[in-house]
Amino acid sequence: MSKAQRLDEREIGTKTRDLYPTRGTQEYLTERIDPVVYGDGEPKGEHSLTQEQLDFYEQNGFIVVPDVFSRAEVDTFIGEYRKLAASDKLQDREELVMEPASNRPRSIFSLHRFSELFARLARDRRILDKIVQILDSDVYIHHTRINIKRPLNGKSFPWHSDFETWHAEDGVPRCRILSAWIMLTENNQFNGPLFLIPGSHKYFVSCSGFTPENNHKYSLRKQEYGVPNMKTLEKLTAEGGMAAALGSPGTLILHEGNVMHGSADNISPVPRTNLFFVYNSVRNAPAEKPFAAPKFRPEFLASRDYSPLRPVEGTKGH
Amino acid sequence: MSKAQRLDEREIGTKTRDLYPTRGTQEYLTERIDPVVYGDGEPKGEHSLTQEQLDFYEQNGFIVVPDVFSRAEVDTFIGEYRKLAASDKLQDREELVMEPASNRPRSIFSLHRFSELFARLARDRRILDKIVQILDSDVYIHHTRINIKRPLNGKSFPWHSDFETWHAEDGVPRCRILSAWIMLTENNQFNGPLFLIPGSHKYFVSCSGFTPENNHKYSLRKQEYGVPNMKTLEKLTAEGGMAAALGSPGTLILHEGNVMHGSADNISPVPRTNLFFVYNSVRNAPAEKPFAAPKFRPEFLASRDYSPLRPVEGTKGH
Repeated sequence: MSKAQRLDEREIGTKTRDLYPTRGTQEYLTERIDPVVYGDGEPKGEHSLTQEQLDFYEQNGFIVVPDVFSRAEVDTFIGEYRKLAASDKLQDREELVMEPASNRPRSIFSLHRFSELFARLARDRRILDKIVQILDSDVYIHHTRINIKRPLNGKSFPWHSDFETWHAEDGVPRCRILSAWIMLTENNQFNGPLFLIPGSHKYFVSCSGFTPENNHKYSLRKQEYGVPNMKTLEKLTAEGGMAAALGSPGTLILHEGNVMHGSADNISPVPRTNLFFVYNSVRNAPAEKPFAAPKFRPEFLASRDYSPLRPVEGTKGH
Repeated sequence: MSKAQRLDEREIGTKTRDLYPTRGTQEYLTERIDPVVYGDGEPKGEHSLTQEQLDFYEQNGFIVVPDVFSRAEVDTFIGEYRKLAASDKLQDREELVMEPASNRPRSIFSLHRFSELFARLARDRRILDKIVQILDSDVYIHHTRINIKRPLNGKSFPWHSDFETWHAEDGVPRCRILSAWIMLTENNQFNGPLFLIPGSHKYFVSCSGFTPENNHKYSLRKQEYGVPNMKTLEKLTAEGGMAAALGSPGTLILHEGNVMHGSADNISPVPRTNLFFVYNSVRNAPAEKPFAAPKFRPEFLASRDYSPLRPVEGTKGH
C-alpha cells in the first residue's frame, strides 16, 4: 500500500463524524443512513448476482446462493483448516480458539494469512464479483475465520449486528462492509443454523452499555455488549419475521454487515462448520480510533492492511 | 383406589424383572422388548387416531395432530396457568419452578391437582381416546406439567428418552407409557422446538452413570444422567434422521415414552409454551423400588395415585 493511500484513509477516518452512535446509556432504533447496494448495482463480472438476487439482498440483508463451490473444493477447504489447526504456526496463537472442554478447535482467525489456499479463496471471483457489485469499490479483508459449532453441545449466539461491533470497537465509519461465508457442512434446522431478521439491516440499533477494555476476549465466547433488548427484537421481527440460512456444503451466503442475526445451539450429532470472509470498502477504512471502545481490537479481528484485493479465477492450482 | 388394587399393583412391581437395565458402567443399545401399540389398535372412541396416524406413530414414535384444541380453548389454558402461577396455593411449593434470573415461572407440575380445568383436560376424550387406543388399557396420570421456554434465552435440553428416567428413577417397569402435549404458543424452527429421532423408540439406550440421590433437583434444569453419547446418537440418526415437532397453538403431539428427543434453546422473541400430560397404563404401575436410583422421585414427578381416568367430553362448563 502506498503512503498516499494510507494518508487518504486516515483522513477519511479523522474527518468522519460518528453517524451511528452506540454503547450509550440507553438503547434506541434509528434508520440506516447508508445505502445497502452502492452505485448502480450493474454486474461487474461473470459471477455477479442477477438483478433478482441483488434485489433480494437489498430488501432482506442477505442472500443464500447454493452450489457456488463443489463438494471436491469443500473437501479441500476442510482438509486445509484441519492441517492449519494442527500446524505449528498456529499453536499458542490468539488466532486459534479451542473448545474450553476439549482439545479441538472452535475458531481459527486470519485464515488468509496462514494459508495460500484461503488467501486465494478470499479473492475468488465467485465471491469478489458479487462483493464489488454490491459495494461499488475496491475492497480489503476486514477479517477471515472458520467457525466450528460442535455437535451435541455447540453453543448458541445471541442476536447482534456485526456492524455495530465493527463500528463501536474497530472504528469502521459507515456500513459499507459485509460478510461472505461458505458452508463446509450442511446447515440444517437441527445443527444451530444462522437465524436472520430480514430487513433489520435498514435500521441501526444503538445498544446500551459501555464497552469494557479487551471486550473481545469475552465477546468471542459470549457477546454481552451490542445485544439488543426484547422490545427492539419484537419490533424488528414484527416487521421482518425470521429466516434461517440453510443449505448444503458449498453454499455461499452474502450477509450485509448490519443485518440482525444470531444462532441457536447445536444439539445434533453433525457439526456446523462455516468459513467467513469479511470485506470492507477501501473507501470505508477505520477512523483514527474506535467510536465506542477504549482501544482497537487486535489485528486478527480487524485488519489494518487496507490493500485492495485483486480477484483470481478459482482455487485451482493449489 | 381400593386396597385390592394397590396390592395387585405392588405385586406387579415386585414380580417384575428389570427388563431395561440402565445407569451401569457403560452405555449400550438393545432392542425394545415391548410393543408400541398394544392390543389391536382398533378405534375405541370418536376421537381415536385413524389407521394411518396410528401406523405413523407406531413407526416413528410420535405424531403431530394439528387443530385438536381451538384458539379460544388455548387462551383459556394460558389464562389458567397464569392464574395458577400467581396463586397462593403454589407459592413456595416444589411444583412451581421459577427462572433462576427472573421472577417468572418456567415450569408448573401437577397442574391437574391444582386446577379443575386441567384435571378435566387430562381426561378429555380428544386425548384419552387416542391414549387408550394405543395402550389398550385404563391409564392413570404419571405426571402433568407446563413448560415455558422463555424468549431470548430459554435453555436447550440434551437428548434423552423419558422412559429411561421413568424406569430408572420411578420404577416404571415396561414401556407402556406416553406423553400427550398441547402447544399453547406456536412451536417453530426459531423458538427451540422439540427435536425427535424417528424410530429411536424401537431401541433402548442403556445409559452409563450411577444416579445420585435427589438427581431430580438437578436433572430438571440440566439432565446429565440418561443422556446418550455421540456414537449412539449417530447410529440412531443414521437410521431415523431427525424431525422437529412444529405447529400452531392447539396442536396435540403424542410422544411415545421411549422416543429419543431434545431441544435447542430459544433465542427468538416468542416463548415456547407447552402443556404435558403423561399417561401410564394401570397394568404398568411402578415396582416396589426404582430400578436404578437410591429412592423414588417425589410424588409430583411420579404420581402414586393409580386411579384409572374416566374420560369426559371436552373442557366446556369451566
